[in-house]
Amino acid sequence: MPEKQESQPEETPQQEEVEKKQDDEPVKEEKKDDDQKEQPEPPREMRAVVLTAFGGLKSVKTQKKPEPSPAEGEILVKVSHCGLNFQDLMARQGAIDAPPKTPFILGSECAGEVVQLGTGVENFQVGQRVVCLPEFRAWAEFVCVPARLAFALPDDVSNEEAAALAMNALAAYMLLFEVAGLSEGQSVLLHSAGGGLGLVIAQLARTVKDVTLIGVASKSKHDAIKDHFDHLLERGCDYVSEVRKISPDGVDLVLDCLCLEDCNRGYSLLKPMGKYVLYGSSNVVTGETKSFFSVARSWWQVDKISPIKLFDENKTIAGFNLRHLLRTPAGSDRAHKAMDKVIQLWKNKAIKPIVDSSWALEDVPEAMQVMHDRKNIGKLILNPALEPKPRPATPAKKGSKEEKSKKKDKEEKKEEKEKPAENGDKKEEEEEKKEPEAKQEDEKAAEKADS
Amino acid sequence: MPEKQESQPEETPQQEEVEKKQDDEPVKEEKKDDDQKEQPEPPREMRAVVLTAFGGLKSVKTQKKPEPSPAEGEILVKVSHCGLNFQDLMARQGAIDAPPKTPFILGSECAGEVVQLGTGVENFQVGQRVVCLPEFRAWAEFVCVPARLAFALPDDVSNEEAAALAMNALAAYMLLFEVAGLSEGQSVLLHSAGGGLGLVIAQLARTVKDVTLIGVASKSKHDAIKDHFDHLLERGCDYVSEVRKISPDGVDLVLDCLCLEDCNRGYSLLKPMGKYVLYGSSNVVTGETKSFFSVARSWWQVDKISPIKLFDENKTIAGFNLRHLLRTPAGSDRAHKAMDKVIQLWKNKAIKPIVDSSWALEDVPEAMQVMHDRKNIGKLILNPALEPKPRPATPAKKGSKEEKSKKKDKEEKKEEKEKPAENGDKKEEEEEKKEPEAKQEDEKAAEKADS
Repeated sequence: MPEKQESQPEETPQQEEVEKKQDDEPVKEEKKDDDQKEQPEPPREMRAVVLTAFGGLKSVKTQKKPEPSPAEGEILVKVSHCGLNFQDLMARQGAIDAPPKTPFILGSECAGEVVQLGTGVENFQVGQRVVCLPEFRAWAEFVCVPARLAFALPDDVSNEEAAALAMNALAAYMLLFEVAGLSEGQSVLLHSAGGGLGLVIAQLARTVKDVTLIGVASKSKHDAIKDHFDHLLERGCDYVSEVRKISPDGVDLVLDCLCLEDCNRGYSLLKPMGKYVLYGSSNVVTGETKSFFSVARSWWQVDKISPIKLFDENKTIAGFNLRHLLRTPAGSDRAHKAMDKVIQLWKNKAIKPIVDSSWALEDVPEAMQVMHDRKNIGKLILNPALEPKPRPATPAKKGSKEEKSKKKDKEEKKEEKEKPAENGDKKEEEEEKKEPEAKQEDEKAAEKADS
Repeated sequence: MPEKQESQPEETPQQEEVEKKQDDEPVKEEKKDDDQKEQPEPPREMRAVVLTAFGGLKSVKTQKKPEPSPAEGEILVKVSHCGLNFQDLMARQGAIDAPPKTPFILGSECAGEVVQLGTGVENFQVGQRVVCLPEFRAWAEFVCVPARLAFALPDDVSNEEAAALAMNALAAYMLLFEVAGLSEGQSVLLHSAGGGLGLVIAQLARTVKDVTLIGVASKSKHDAIKDHFDHLLERGCDYVSEVRKISPDGVDLVLDCLCLEDCNRGYSLLKPMGKYVLYGSSNVVTGETKSFFSVARSWWQVDKISPIKLFDENKTIAGFNLRHLLRTPAGSDRAHKAMDKVIQLWKNKAIKPIVDSSWALEDVPEAMQVMHDRKNIGKLILNPALEPKPRPATPAKKGSKEEKSKKKDKEEKKEEKEKPAENGDKKEEEEEKKEPEAKQEDEKAAEKADS
């Protein structure tokens, strides 16, 4: 029974949800009961990570679902590895534009093997390995994906590497080279430097000669990521003053992932010909509330830019949103061209996947919590073949394949507890602490917004 | 006597100024009278194009001025050729930020030979040929320029070519490759396609494979420039619909020189990942009134852009203003790097100067009128060694070196008279007709604004 598999680790904030869940499910799930066997060929079932309602972690459940069949223009992929991205946390909260109706299968990145072609698909073959960036439904044993959102993998790139790197590398490449036009000798200020995307941006920026990289990341990550950056600043610090100390003239690029902590001051750091790129969706889920996200959106909406100011100051403002780009054929065409270049860089070892840990589908809520808490250094991978974790007595994460990284992780957690963050992190920690209580309210608000 | 040399061609609108000027000058000019010969070494004099007050063409006078001496960090250049640019028309009207006090010597582009070095200048030598982009004072027999605004010329680039190409090629290069990042297969919509800058942008864009160029220019220029573009649209047409007919998905780049005719609709033409670049100062002087310019500024200032919209739509808005860029050492450093690349393209014949006509310093008002009327195809050059034009009975221009281009020019003028423009040009022509009457008023307004 799927219900067994999705039970939460006892010690996480999700524990209290276990009882409630039992009541919720019969209502929300389209059950394939055993007594419906009058059908000549019962649809095969697969495990999938289903969002039952917008809101907190308790709405994320691993369930059995019918295996899908490819429609025209789609391919059916047997999934071996999936990527977890910040946009999945936002989707869970309904904090995205035009979210689908719940329940639906989460996930927007997976790698695997093509097992069936829909009509009209000519550029793929059964047996071929691919990485896919569908808008949803990637976190399952099987997924149907429009062929234009699938990218063929060469022999020397494994599925796990692809799931760890594809979306971040594609986004980082397009961001740095197609939007910002990074070139020799330039300086870059990168917010959210320690996340999966941040670390790929850092690697790609290093492929350009004499680039100076200034990263902003939680202090707890500094040791682990310091080799990727020339300078690291602490999250929540007065980064404008700190950057001025390092580079009095400012920087050529500011890469801002829609952080809450007034990144707009970063505009003033731009040198002449400097570019400010809004690229993501990372920190807006801090605090795990949809209202936080709304604040961020409206803040940006209020702070509009006069084109004449850009003209007077020789500056550029750009936005990059891979998810939106992939929605249109023109956008996915462009992404395919970029992915060809990314795969070359990948094969040349200019970029390497940095995997934080791997998780069973059933452990997605815990993996989401790790990402929310900014505890991951590099990518969180889901692997449908992994066994769900036993429930340990301690809260440390236990990705079955990443035993080697566990020690470091534990040390970091300890360090953080001993020394509470002095600055902006403090607020965030407080938000996190009250999260379990606040979650039900948020969930209701999110559901309201969705309806 | 300097007064003799600066008299205006009888048939131009400047004629009426001749008498007035006699009264104005004793007040405004710091005279070096012959009876002041008690000085051991009287300062040598040079001819220069002086703006005596902000406003119309009658304020532009060729006068004798003392030859300048280089201050620290400056070089003294003996000028052989100068470029006329739209920003000079704007400077004449005071329609620039922080204009200097009148009288001052006009001109922001010249080429010549270094004849003296100020203290501290180490990167130039006497005898070296240079092209200079000072903020003012370029239109004279001699000019002192901060060394950082001078660019050494290689042997195979003549001074005339340099004056014809340097500013436009530098601006076009930085605009296309550093701001917009033009790349293979992209499509470009270029406003003001037939001007000096527009034609260099077109040439540079052609150095990139499979670029589609759509230009907007006055109908009268289409024949002369059609080889540079894939598609030409008429100034004042509904260019958004026309572009959609050519390219239903829109374009990758819109290069907008602050045109008056609602170029902001061009934003809607951008493909995903498209970039909108505001780059210049061209059309805002249409109508020869400062108030027109003010309208353009406020229109852009009102129409602000939300960064979140750029993020949602994967779009970029950029501003490029070479004049402002060159004001700071960081900006001129960057320009020097770009100029090195421009000169390579120049030597490889990827770009060639397109000279419309050459003019004596004394004929600057007439040259300005040609630019204002959008009659030039390519660059207007000033040459201090040229004799002022005799006063002909007809108003046709007679650049002494460009006899070959005269015929075509005459034919165009005839064509225009026979067939009045059907569209936006009509309004402009009306503005032009009433110009001589309106000029005094504009001048007063400009002076007021300046004080």
